[in-house]
Amino acid sequence: MSELADTPEPPYWAVIFASVRTEGDADRYAQTADEMMALAAEQPGYLGVESVHDAETGAGITVSYWESEQAIAGWRAHADHKTAQRLGRERWYRAYRLRVARVERAATFERSD
Amino acid sequence: MSELADTPEPPYWAVIFASVRTEGDADRYAQTADEMMALAAEQPGYLGVESVHDAETGAGITVSYWESEQAIAGWRAHADHKTAQRLGRERWYRAYRLRVARVERAATFERSD
Repeated sequence: MSELADTPEPPYWAVIFASVRTEGDADRYAQTADEMMALAAEQPGYLGVESVHDAETGAGITVSYWESEQAIAGWRAHADHKTAQRLGRERWYRAYRLRVARVERAATFERSD
Repeated sequence: MSELADTPEPPYWAVIFASVRTEGDADRYAQTADEMMALAAEQPGYLGVESVHDAETGAGITVSYWESEQAIAGWRAHADHKTAQRLGRERWYRAYRLRVARVERAATFERSD
């Protein structure tokens, strides 16, 4: 995660994607993941993303933030994203869980020193 | 993350905690984090947790799941948790963002082979 997502005041929407990788095809996975992050950022209604992976265990959590459920539906149906979703199920993920949630409250802390 | 959280059918609630660590006090941080995960699991209304950290960058995302906003409020006000929250701001976190969200939909994939 390069930084925390600078989202606006709630309400907005979050897609929480928790995954466990297979061991294979690491190069193509990493390249596609980068491409999908860049492509998501170009979609209407995109607000930001936070993503952390543990290289040792293959676990990852990516949370993307969106203005509306319609924006999430649009990204879900994007042709290149659909191809990546299929490859994810065929090759890259041992298991994942995806949750769509409406963010109601948020709080931020930043160290002052 | 040891495994994906086995949450019930939505709706339920999620606390999305995205953080960036300071470089100090690693031992006490890790011990307290483990203690807080165990203590959270004993609270009324707790449904599960998913947590991933990147040891190289100090970034982390922990998502805990709860039956209700009341359950979240109860955990937030727990005395030991409040102490950990204070130490987090004083010592362990460079920055964090915490979001409370209502999970409306969920989907799961598990590899069959």
